[in-house]
Amino acid sequence: MQIKQCLQHIKIGILERLDAGEIVIGDGGFVFALEKRGYVKAGPWTPEATVEHPEAVRQLHREFLRAGSNVLQTFTFYASEDKLENRGNYVAEKISCQKVNEAACDIAREVANEGDALVAGGVSQTPSYLSCKDKAEVKAAFRKQLDVFMKKNVDFLIAEYFEHVEEAVWAVEVLKESGKPVAATMCIGPEGDMHGVPPGQCAVQLVKAGASIVGVNCHFDPDTSLETVKLMKEGLQAAKMKAHLMSQPLAFHTPDCGKQGFIDLPEFPFGLEPRIVTRWDIQKYARKAYDLGIRYIGGCCGFEPYHVRAIAEELAPERGFLPEASEKHGSWGDSLSMHTKPWVRARARKEYWENLKPASGRPYCPSMSKPDGWGVTKGARELMQQKEATSEQQLKELFQKQKF
Amino acid sequence: MQIKQCLQHIKIGILERLDAGEIVIGDGGFVFALEKRGYVKAGPWTPEATVEHPEAVRQLHREFLRAGSNVLQTFTFYASEDKLENRGNYVAEKISCQKVNEAACDIAREVANEGDALVAGGVSQTPSYLSCKDKAEVKAAFRKQLDVFMKKNVDFLIAEYFEHVEEAVWAVEVLKESGKPVAATMCIGPEGDMHGVPPGQCAVQLVKAGASIVGVNCHFDPDTSLETVKLMKEGLQAAKMKAHLMSQPLAFHTPDCGKQGFIDLPEFPFGLEPRIVTRWDIQKYARKAYDLGIRYIGGCCGFEPYHVRAIAEELAPERGFLPEASEKHGSWGDSLSMHTKPWVRARARKEYWENLKPASGRPYCPSMSKPDGWGVTKGARELMQQKEATSEQQLKELFQKQKF
Amino acid sequence: MQIKQCLQHIKIGILERLDAGEIVIGDGGFVFALEKRGYVKAGPWTPEATVEHPEAVRQLHREFLRAGSNVLQTFTFYASEDKLENRGNYVAEKISCQKVNEAACDIAREVANEGDALVAGGVSQTPSYLSCKDKAEVKAAFRKQLDVFMKKNVDFLIAEYFEHVEEAVWAVEVLKESGKPVAATMCIGPEGDMHGVPPGQCAVQLVKAGASIVGVNCHFDPDTSLETVKLMKEGLQAAKMKAHLMSQPLAFHTPDCGKQGFIDLPEFPFGLEPRIVTRWDIQKYARKAYDLGIRYIGGCCGFEPYHVRAIAEELAPERGFLPEASEKHGSWGDSLSMHTKPWVRARARKEYWENLKPASGRPYCPSMSKPDGWGVTKGARELMQQKEATSEQQLKELFQKQKF
Amino acid sequence: MQIKQCLQHIKIGILERLDAGEIVIGDGGFVFALEKRGYVKAGPWTPEATVEHPEAVRQLHREFLRAGSNVLQTFTFYASEDKLENRGNYVAEKISCQKVNEAACDIAREVANEGDALVAGGVSQTPSYLSCKDKAEVKAAFRKQLDVFMKKNVDFLIAEYFEHVEEAVWAVEVLKESGKPVAATMCIGPEGDMHGVPPGQCAVQLVKAGASIVGVNCHFDPDTSLETVKLMKEGLQAAKMKAHLMSQPLAFHTPDCGKQGFIDLPEFPFGLEPRIVTRWDIQKYARKAYDLGIRYIGGCCGFEPYHVRAIAEELAPERGFLPEASEKHGSWGDSLSMHTKPWVRARARKEYWENLKPASGRPYCPSMSKPDGWGVTKGARELMQQKEATSEQQLKELFQKQKF
Repeated sequence: MQIKQCLQHIKIGILERLDAGEIVIGDGGFVFALEKRGYVKAGPWTPEATVEHPEAVRQLHREFLRAGSNVLQTFTFYASEDKLENRGNYVAEKISCQKVNEAACDIAREVANEGDALVAGGVSQTPSYLSCKDKAEVKAAFRKQLDVFMKKNVDFLIAEYFEHVEEAVWAVEVLKESGKPVAATMCIGPEGDMHGVPPGQCAVQLVKAGASIVGVNCHFDPDTSLETVKLMKEGLQAAKMKAHLMSQPLAFHTPDCGKQGFIDLPEFPFGLEPRIVTRWDIQKYARKAYDLGIRYIGGCCGFEPYHVRAIAEELAPERGFLPEASEKHGSWGDSLSMHTKPWVRARARKEYWENLKPASGRPYCPSMSKPDGWGVTKGARELMQQKEATSEQQLKELFQKQKF
Repeated sequence: MQIKQCLQHIKIGILERLDAGEIVIGDGGFVFALEKRGYVKAGPWTPEATVEHPEAVRQLHREFLRAGSNVLQTFTFYASEDKLENRGNYVAEKISCQKVNEAACDIAREVANEGDALVAGGVSQTPSYLSCKDKAEVKAAFRKQLDVFMKKNVDFLIAEYFEHVEEAVWAVEVLKESGKPVAATMCIGPEGDMHGVPPGQCAVQLVKAGASIVGVNCHFDPDTSLETVKLMKEGLQAAKMKAHLMSQPLAFHTPDCGKQGFIDLPEFPFGLEPRIVTRWDIQKYARKAYDLGIRYIGGCCGFEPYHVRAIAEELAPERGFLPEASEKHGSWGDSLSMHTKPWVRARARKEYWENLKPASGRPYCPSMSKPDGWGVTKGARELMQQKEATSEQQLKELFQKQKF
Repeated sequence: MQIKQCLQHIKIGILERLDAGEIVIGDGGFVFALEKRGYVKAGPWTPEATVEHPEAVRQLHREFLRAGSNVLQTFTFYASEDKLENRGNYVAEKISCQKVNEAACDIAREVANEGDALVAGGVSQTPSYLSCKDKAEVKAAFRKQLDVFMKKNVDFLIAEYFEHVEEAVWAVEVLKESGKPVAATMCIGPEGDMHGVPPGQCAVQLVKAGASIVGVNCHFDPDTSLETVKLMKEGLQAAKMKAHLMSQPLAFHTPDCGKQGFIDLPEFPFGLEPRIVTRWDIQKYARKAYDLGIRYIGGCCGFEPYHVRAIAEELAPERGFLPEASEKHGSWGDSLSMHTKPWVRARARKEYWENLKPASGRPYCPSMSKPDGWGVTKGARELMQQKEATSEQQLKELFQKQKF
Repeated sequence: MQIKQCLQHIKIGILERLDAGEIVIGDGGFVFALEKRGYVKAGPWTPEATVEHPEAVRQLHREFLRAGSNVLQTFTFYASEDKLENRGNYVAEKISCQKVNEAACDIAREVANEGDALVAGGVSQTPSYLSCKDKAEVKAAFRKQLDVFMKKNVDFLIAEYFEHVEEAVWAVEVLKESGKPVAATMCIGPEGDMHGVPPGQCAVQLVKAGASIVGVNCHFDPDTSLETVKLMKEGLQAAKMKAHLMSQPLAFHTPDCGKQGFIDLPEFPFGLEPRIVTRWDIQKYARKAYDLGIRYIGGCCGFEPYHVRAIAEELAPERGFLPEASEKHGSWGDSLSMHTKPWVRARARKEYWENLKPASGRPYCPSMSKPDGWGVTKGARELMQQKEATSEQQLKELFQKQKF
């Protein structure tokens, strides 16, 4: 144990790696993966599993590590106190915010020490911001989580999944108090944040607030996310500012979604299966991200360990090595050369998988959906935002009327 | 430990459960799930992970148990000695067939004892059958695995994933030597086995050989699989024979595949994502299977823990209880009533998910594919079967010429 | 005029052509083509245009003739007296059944004499059959039309578009009274007629009644129609009977329709555009029909002149000549070699068009539909068939409930 | 005849109609419609049919007139002398440019006089422009056509189908010499002309050159075309200029095409069937165009008479009357209330057709395509533009390499 703690101190930090031009591979999406494994409830999406079922969280961390992740994020998504309280009473015995966050740190550190990974403590947007917008109160919520991260001595900090740059800036300001490196990613698309601030400006504000790494996470597919990071990059260049770039998109195809991303797609969150990206889609994403100058490349909701492995395999020539899990995976399908059927063996080649247009087996389904929410008519949206005035019944009628 | 071993002895057996009219829920697909988690190599598909990474296998068993599985199958797919040897040298240190099978039994038992599940030892088709067809030799391979199952005292036995009823009958005969109950499932569709024996006749032969439970697993989607079991049921009725029925289909939509199932689809095995079934598809499958008289209902490749949970949730009214993992899942999406966006809250209802036709987000992809293999022209198939005469190059040309 | 009448008498008859092994090319779909041109009303589908706008009917006949048709069918679809009366009062001045039929004969003959085509008088199923089933009454309706055909001296007769073989047999019996050759086609698929008589038996009954040519028309796409004709051929072979085979399918893709064909598809009749077949689809159809032994090859609803031309072009090697309209069409797109853009010139080749999988440009639409009607639940269908008891309102509710 | 010529003189002119706020309905696409009828050759697309088969051209004009067209355009597309010569020798007997243009005028006038329509003489882009760019020479080509239009006394003039605003301006300048009203439409999308001039600027230049009516025709679907006209409108407003707006889009869905429109889609021109718009799509287009302030509303390639009728039916409330062909068409499918099947009768209502998402019946086809040409990589395009240096073989290889 002594040795391990020692090792941790000599680990090379995130900024040293990035400054040296290294590629840093992020991890994947915990809430979605653990929802499918039976440990997270869709809707509230809170991470009490760190206390209730640490073995499940640990195993997922381990799979990402084996797949090539250089950073393990503490599973503290939506783990602010206000959010955990919002969940209501469905968790049988009340688990405190602090306990959830501490357990998350311990598990991440334990697994990180099985390899060469860094631990990043993460905060994300709060219900407080949406309901009251009081800066002090929102900052207090972040600070509460930060206290745990400091006590547990994480390697660096990430403010992620913010729809409003204003709140993201507050988060970065709090995290910077720690003296540790801070990364900041927003869950926005090329149209910018929910108040209409364009990506380039968001990036500038985040760097001004102290972030050394900026980018996007969640809400949009790889292609759309890279488009957004490109706008951030251009914004920083125009402002003559420098920062490392980062992208952690969805592992779902979402060319049809509106400003607020996949939340508004009718398939969210229980019918997204046909949109799941393949490992080959991810290899294309990794290459494109690299070519764009992004050096912190990971994923968010939908990313399973094999998606992270695909990043590591695509960039193996640049990095000079393969991840551990590649022992169980041939490059571009070459393990199929051991298959019993000759026509499957004929698929053991790059051009095959690179060019495949996979069918859905769903002839009664369309390829695109019309999004709800930000995709609905302005009138309907306004009505929906008058929360008190709008009953669920009215809402349903609204949708039935206007959908198509 | 004493107490647990004791408990195991008082567990109610598979036939007692089925005879009493109980619904027995199977588990999901290990090779596909563990391939995505980084522990199994597609192509050889062998289960050395039981020795190399028992914690990963254990965790997956546990997730299925929590999701509602009443049976945990030992992870011994393709673990016959001949198959393990075929893998070649990619496993760094040679792991013996016996070790792999023993570890599989230990892990399954350990997790089964965390709940009320039974352990089933499984054998599947062998390379020996395809290459030599010598009955004694093939049976010897099964017997080698059976020895381990007897030593480890599994609760019952499953012969699964057979393309030829002849080999399946041999497997059942060997397994029956044990005195334990035997289930037998074939990976065939409504067209019957690879020698043209129709499903009804396959069922009759398997029951004659000693199987108490018959059905299908793998290769086809839920709808097609149920069609096949229906034909088996009719075959048994016509022969005035009785057996319990079982189905463990793919969790992929495959309306377009030919006689040999999803192996021949161009997307197999690395581009199947858009075909993954939703939890709601599984609820429909579970209901349809139940209505058809099937009482052993599980899944195969593609089935993740949340798919198994969907079986348990659909049949909760009949069974009178929900599985443990349903604590983290609302019936028909009702946990979404806690979502922050009102239009997502409007999705917290059965009719929404029941009627959703999920989009793929893939406008450049078709909905159906033309299968290779048994879907190719007879001439091409014959040529491919002359293995010696056909170089990979010839094969590729063949496919390029005729595909569309 | 004298000379033309003379010519008509020396035209080689339909049976002489077929007996000599010649390929006879039929024409296309009048009601659909003229509906789009503004002369036929969808719903009643009656042919009063022969009197109201003879120039429009004449021009369409002429286009089919130029495209290669060897037979011009009189535009007398649904022109039985009972059907014309059913139309109600929407035709401003009442036009008599006789006038409509006579004009149809005159126009067809006039255009046929511009080339080498034969004129065929056609009868189709009657409302009388459905409402009363009195053989004498139904036969009287056919005889009324036959009287006109005899007076106008058509070259041969076709009983087409019958859903029930019983009525088709009655029609053939009446037409045979004329002494002229009789062809009979039913609008059925592989499942057989609406009373459940399989295609093979239908063919046998029609030949027994006196038809020299049997086959199918309308209701199903080329592939499905050929499947049905194949069953007819097998039925005749089993009964050791001989007849020429004929197919006149839809020019719409309908893989998803049920027993009653495209009528039940939700797109019928005003949303069928994305299903329209290309000229290349028709070339494949013509080849397949020829290989199956069919020698009377034409089309029905949806077939435009360029579809008929595609039959003639595909079978030009067998026939030894191209139709007149091919002056304005290069084989397999070779006229594109004169296009201004080089990438369009690169499409001037057979492999390009043969293999093209054309996109719909409709990302929000599915590729298949669930049919109404015979596709609906048995309960709903029964209810619908109790016509008196079922108000339109009830019907709509029924559909809303069960459609997805 | 005297009376008709008289009537023509008292016809209300195009500008008087538009200035009075009237809606003017254009006609549809001649080259595509007549190609399918067998009178125009795809590739060269030249209109010698006016001389060779005047009855076919006359009938199509008549159908558009009946469908509601207020303007009949002379069928003089690509009828400039240089283009007609380019066709090569495929027209058996050489037909002079003048003869083709004169016949086109005569036919249009004859049919226009059957109703209340105006005749518009049309010129379109020339090969001369692309090859030499000599203003005098290009203008001479337009002047040659204009001479015929003046001799035949057409009611007004249209410069249409221009990819470069420079050439369009030259055309307008020539046409303005006549003293007649001039309309000008370009075949561009929102990205502007092939030299990169944005739509707003194109509109300004055309109005400056003398056009009273500006807009777009061809190359893009209704939605995209309206987007382009909107940009033109905004450009004119910004420049404080006034002109009437006009749109004549494709009747094909082309959401996936690049800068040069449907020419570059792999389906052009012989596989566009699944993209054909329905009459209901056109009703939506007509409404949207009207709401945008467009008052000259017609169509181009793919528009058949029933599409024009759909414009007239949608705007009947504003215009106060229905076109003649609506006698054979019920509003929003209401003629189906006379259908024999109750479930088809249930489709006789607006909401049904308005909301239908029509299926393609093509499960092996995608919904979108990757365009060639302007959609190809820059390198490939440059290579293709070096026409001498690039053999067809090189081109095919280029496409094979990069297309998927």
